[in-house]
Amino acid sequence: MQRALISMMAEWCKPAGRVRGVLLDISGVLYDSGEGGGIPITGSTEAVKRIKEANLKVRFCTNETQATRETFVEKLRHLGFDIALNEVFAPAPAVRQILKERGLRPHLLVHDGLLPEFNEIDQSNPNCVVIGDAADNFSYKNLNKAFQVLIGLEKPVLLSLGSGRYYKETDGLKLDVGVYMKALEYACDIEAEVVGKPAKMFFLSAVSDMGLEPDQVIMIGDDIVNDVGGAQQCGMKAVQVRTGKYRPCDEQHPTVKADGYVDNLAHAVRILLEHPH
Amino acid sequence: MQRALISMMAEWCKPAGRVRGVLLDISGVLYDSGEGGGIPITGSTEAVKRIKEANLKVRFCTNETQATRETFVEKLRHLGFDIALNEVFAPAPAVRQILKERGLRPHLLVHDGLLPEFNEIDQSNPNCVVIGDAADNFSYKNLNKAFQVLIGLEKPVLLSLGSGRYYKETDGLKLDVGVYMKALEYACDIEAEVVGKPAKMFFLSAVSDMGLEPDQVIMIGDDIVNDVGGAQQCGMKAVQVRTGKYRPCDEQHPTVKADGYVDNLAHAVRILLEHPH
Repeated sequence: MQRALISMMAEWCKPAGRVRGVLLDISGVLYDSGEGGGIPITGSTEAVKRIKEANLKVRFCTNETQATRETFVEKLRHLGFDIALNEVFAPAPAVRQILKERGLRPHLLVHDGLLPEFNEIDQSNPNCVVIGDAADNFSYKNLNKAFQVLIGLEKPVLLSLGSGRYYKETDGLKLDVGVYMKALEYACDIEAEVVGKPAKMFFLSAVSDMGLEPDQVIMIGDDIVNDVGGAQQCGMKAVQVRTGKYRPCDEQHPTVKADGYVDNLAHAVRILLEHPH
Repeated sequence: MQRALISMMAEWCKPAGRVRGVLLDISGVLYDSGEGGGIPITGSTEAVKRIKEANLKVRFCTNETQATRETFVEKLRHLGFDIALNEVFAPAPAVRQILKERGLRPHLLVHDGLLPEFNEIDQSNPNCVVIGDAADNFSYKNLNKAFQVLIGLEKPVLLSLGSGRYYKETDGLKLDVGVYMKALEYACDIEAEVVGKPAKMFFLSAVSDMGLEPDQVIMIGDDIVNDVGGAQQCGMKAVQVRTGKYRPCDEQHPTVKADGYVDNLAHAVRILLEHPH
């Protein structure tokens, strides 16, 4: 009975291909953000180390847009994580690429900490709006300004760095960029283009960077829609941790069912490494 | 030819019943709001006077929620309008009624100017959220607080004082409450209950207050969806003015077609009074 239970719980770590790599969400999986930089989730620094020692490939796939990738990685290293800049996939570098390819000049509604990512980008006479998790910068005045830019364009283009509803900080749940994306969509009667999770291209670029196929990779995240659902749509197995923004009702989500639910990242890694790969 | 044109333009003022009353939107029809109280739209003070002199009944049907009804009416009188308190239908008194009937204790996310409307309402231990056009009070912090109240309720109840996308102030278009309603709907995966236009009950209570039937009343507004579409769904004819938030593309709206388009309120009243009723 015990054995049957363990086996059932661990179905997710037996994808069609042998597991060769892991994609990890960061906020709510590695750590909870908040005042003073946030705090690591119990066992997570050790879990990342164990993944690497087991010679599994790993990439970190985040919708974090409150800081440049450099600053963000530095913070995580400071919190004790073994993480390198080129292992982290974040929306800002992805949107920079899009802006360049399409000749778009953004009006930015983002966190002050993200601004340096756009230093080289022409922002004069804007012909699109880019929004990220701007937090306190989501004032009425700033949202109104972004709206006025959009409504003044013949074909309004809104690029959203993620579409999350909320995330967990150490002092509670906080509204995420998706909420303001929806607000601007409604105001202008348009549909935003999402850069970052759950966009397929975003997951696939991280998988491809490991030299793997989606069925060789497991996604571990705390967001049932953007982490789990997004990764599954790319052909990965995906597990939800019961940390971060996880809520028990996620396990009865109307459209997304995770391949497994685990207490936290350490639990996921324990199961993963108990199974030969 | 000239006669045919006039006749075609004026179809809207020949409803099935004889026209006995007029419902007027206020912001964008009577005046444009803004710094210093706003400015009357050319010809509007005179137009209201002419409606009353012609013995047409009139009610003002507004989604204005930046001030108490008393303060709002006083401002309009100061701008030169012949308008009385009991002629004005606004969302705050309507939502007060709902709160009382259903035993709801609101967390308020509204303009400071509206707060006195809720003086008598128990706001302890809130079991619902009421949002109005809070303007600068729509800070990240305040929206997040409203979200946290909602997400903490077993059955989140969100009452929205209107669902407008934007309105026009003297210095440009401004985001309206509907945008933040959509934001909270998305954040909590719920549907708000709209109090005010375009809710049927709201229009019908104003019509009933005149002692008339919907087909005896013409609605005149600048919002193609909330004024025109809402009134039409109640069986009224409805005309859009080319003032306030009007935009030329409104005349090709995918789902709502006004019964007529006029340059402004004065123009509408001129046509109305040229036809015997």
